[in-house]
Amino acid sequence: MQIPHESFRLAPGAAGTLQQQIRARVAEGILAGRFRAGDKMPSSRGLAAHLGISRITVTLAYADLVAQDFLTPAGRSGYFVSATAPQQPLFPQAAAPPGRQVDYAALTDRRFSRNARAEKPQDWASYPFPFIYGQADAQLFDHQNWRLCALRALGRRDFDTLTSDYYERDDPLLIEYILRHILPRRGIDAAPAEVLLTLGAQNALWLAAQVLGGPGRRMVMENPGYPGLRAVLAQSGGETLYVDVDEDGLPPDRLPPADVVFTTASHHCPTNATMPLARRVALLAAASARDFVIVEDDYEFEMSFLAPAAPSLKSLDREGRVIYAGSFSKSLFPGLRLGYLVGPEGFIAEARALRATVLRHPPGHVQRTAAYFLSLGHYDALIARMKTAFRRRRMAMDEAIAAHGLTMAGQGGFGGSSVWMRAPDGVDCDALALNLRGQGVLIEPGRVFFGPADAPGNFYRLAFSSIPPGRIAEGVARIAAALAR
Amino acid sequence: MQIPHESFRLAPGAAGTLQQQIRARVAEGILAGRFRAGDKMPSSRGLAAHLGISRITVTLAYADLVAQDFLTPAGRSGYFVSATAPQQPLFPQAAAPPGRQVDYAALTDRRFSRNARAEKPQDWASYPFPFIYGQADAQLFDHQNWRLCALRALGRRDFDTLTSDYYERDDPLLIEYILRHILPRRGIDAAPAEVLLTLGAQNALWLAAQVLGGPGRRMVMENPGYPGLRAVLAQSGGETLYVDVDEDGLPPDRLPPADVVFTTASHHCPTNATMPLARRVALLAAASARDFVIVEDDYEFEMSFLAPAAPSLKSLDREGRVIYAGSFSKSLFPGLRLGYLVGPEGFIAEARALRATVLRHPPGHVQRTAAYFLSLGHYDALIARMKTAFRRRRMAMDEAIAAHGLTMAGQGGFGGSSVWMRAPDGVDCDALALNLRGQGVLIEPGRVFFGPADAPGNFYRLAFSSIPPGRIAEGVARIAAALAR
Repeated sequence: MQIPHESFRLAPGAAGTLQQQIRARVAEGILAGRFRAGDKMPSSRGLAAHLGISRITVTLAYADLVAQDFLTPAGRSGYFVSATAPQQPLFPQAAAPPGRQVDYAALTDRRFSRNARAEKPQDWASYPFPFIYGQADAQLFDHQNWRLCALRALGRRDFDTLTSDYYERDDPLLIEYILRHILPRRGIDAAPAEVLLTLGAQNALWLAAQVLGGPGRRMVMENPGYPGLRAVLAQSGGETLYVDVDEDGLPPDRLPPADVVFTTASHHCPTNATMPLARRVALLAAASARDFVIVEDDYEFEMSFLAPAAPSLKSLDREGRVIYAGSFSKSLFPGLRLGYLVGPEGFIAEARALRATVLRHPPGHVQRTAAYFLSLGHYDALIARMKTAFRRRRMAMDEAIAAHGLTMAGQGGFGGSSVWMRAPDGVDCDALALNLRGQGVLIEPGRVFFGPADAPGNFYRLAFSSIPPGRIAEGVARIAAALAR
Repeated sequence: MQIPHESFRLAPGAAGTLQQQIRARVAEGILAGRFRAGDKMPSSRGLAAHLGISRITVTLAYADLVAQDFLTPAGRSGYFVSATAPQQPLFPQAAAPPGRQVDYAALTDRRFSRNARAEKPQDWASYPFPFIYGQADAQLFDHQNWRLCALRALGRRDFDTLTSDYYERDDPLLIEYILRHILPRRGIDAAPAEVLLTLGAQNALWLAAQVLGGPGRRMVMENPGYPGLRAVLAQSGGETLYVDVDEDGLPPDRLPPADVVFTTASHHCPTNATMPLARRVALLAAASARDFVIVEDDYEFEMSFLAPAAPSLKSLDREGRVIYAGSFSKSLFPGLRLGYLVGPEGFIAEARALRATVLRHPPGHVQRTAAYFLSLGHYDALIARMKTAFRRRRMAMDEAIAAHGLTMAGQGGFGGSSVWMRAPDGVDCDALALNLRGQGVLIEPGRVFFGPADAPGNFYRLAFSSIPPGRIAEGVARIAAALAR
């Protein structure tokens, strides 16, 4: 690449002659890996003009660098970074600059990073048996039609959609599709002012918790429950209360006094339990009687291949008590970062204003591409294909798990993309996962799903959304063998 | 479209016979605009199975709807919504459902939406004289190469980049380009752990304010200053202090005791003042002596067509006191929603953990497309083209403003994309803007840039990033005429 002359400046009060300063700056850049073999230096004339110094000073500095093999001259073409220039590793930790440094750990109390946890390995796709949750399967995704829709959304006619700052607004095409085609499947009727696009379900939950939370507010989450929600609630300023779920999900009669209750009613995370209708009605009655609001995370309703998806809680809501969060991360792909909130207009107006301050809006191109993919029917076709594939994988899971006598703790009567497993008492699934990783098997230890008190160590989750069906039997066999040891 | 059978459910305890309920649900859907002329109804067999009722019940309901012209039969193909079906406006406000409703205005105190303000009109591009700031100009943008880069980023080889959940990580290709090619132009050396991608500059400022703010923290903003920062600081939990700027930007000797100081040092928003080097050094010395941190919003450095961009504050920082916020919104387009933060590793780690909770990461496709566009040199070519065009427009602005005797209050010695104007005392620029809008001229009234106390009403901003140069003279003439009245 051409190294821009702006890379060079003469620091006020720097030590050494001008020639030495230029020489040092070039050598530093090469050693730190910012300038690389073959990169072209600014012309001596251009650099001299930029720095307001004599051209001969630059020429002498360059000559010195040539002598030390940092640079190679190429006749009239100028100077290039030498192929044999001294090197150091690319982007080493920047050396601590001289002088006192601000202590950000003290300044921030590390309040955001303190509880960050290691996610699945970055190279999960290179493992032969990845029982991991929530990534897209390249074998199933309709890459071809996604490309065509993206290309259409890049066309001249969509220039404004691509480039404009929407401020607080959303793409009306995508909103209309969600209202007309997706929400009715969940029994939900809504108007445009009752829907807001978000950067995925994580962002939807965060916005809801910020709008509904605050000092003194009691926020309930399921135990076990979605780990991504814990940090969201911690940031809401309220108090987080954990309620143990049973085989039907969140039990309304065990709820403490609360202001906001977060639930994954249709497919509990991580046990996959589906809350029966009677309990849904009881939960809404409790919300009305005790005046709390419910946030329903309906993250995976599309994957109902064993039984029709139960109607959403929101579809039974008569008082505007339910805020509904949906996502395209599971049905399209998580890197899309697209989800939505549905709720009464007064709630959505707050969430919209907050989103405008925090991030404005999801990129216009992403919104429009999804709108095309959905409205051309590719989404429906994809869901149908995924359901067929997931059903097959689920059957393979059930067989392998039964054959090895492993214990399912929750399997999802509706379908889903994972099963919740219990190892024998005393097994530490963190150690189990580490052990299995060495054998090419990735599982998700269950501790992270539990609240801080008394998290049991002998649960794990096996997802089948990214593993080929032909590998399931062998993967489960390796888990069984590891457990037997 | 095919109406999915999931759109139909029998509400527990609903009034009327099953046949009446189905009929009502179809009619409601058509009247509300959810089902439209030509949409295909579920088959009577499929809907009956879905609802668990007799097929004849569905058939009778459909027959009734045909008689009332909601539906049209099409022989063996089934039933369609009739082209002459009764209609109501599309998506009317959803009728308030029966029963008590949660009062979200009371619950949330409208704390996010209360101070939301009307942005520029959505249809700004249809005005002949849009002196508005910050939107992309279709005449200048390199749409063709952007498409090619996006297409490449949609390829099989980038499948994981497109679809994966990155959690807290960023696209290494884009990070490397920023480190090697963009930051050096601002005199900044940084390592990968010192950079974080954001959803535009707005998100960068928000993250910085959240990490550095908190109860009791004193947050300084420039007055006048960037309006988008006000809500960001209000959400940070600290106290917002306003400091009046002068013709050299923020004066360090007028700073109150502070914890965090936000500044647009290189091109003050909205006056376009460039802080001289001596003042930069003084500001950093004050930060060191009084132990505050600086957030430098360097939103428009690329547009330096009159003089080279002054080195960034960050380039002079020896103590890790400066957090740098950059953006591609001005140099590429705002709908991209892509910016970045640069700071010491301890700060970036906090911002990264916070971003992961709030939104995970900017969509992978957006990151990779930008990385290709930058690394193939299209970005540099675009900047060069924009500088030439903006210089021409700026000359036209200067001429027209001088010709009509209007008063510039700040014009940006380096370049930029706007001028800051003062109308005669007593002129209300909100009223002026409204008046001019009726004549096809969009200007930005200046009141929104000032702090809550004593905001003068006689300033306005004229941006030239979206107006064709041939229209500038006539646009300014219309402003002068309106002011003369």
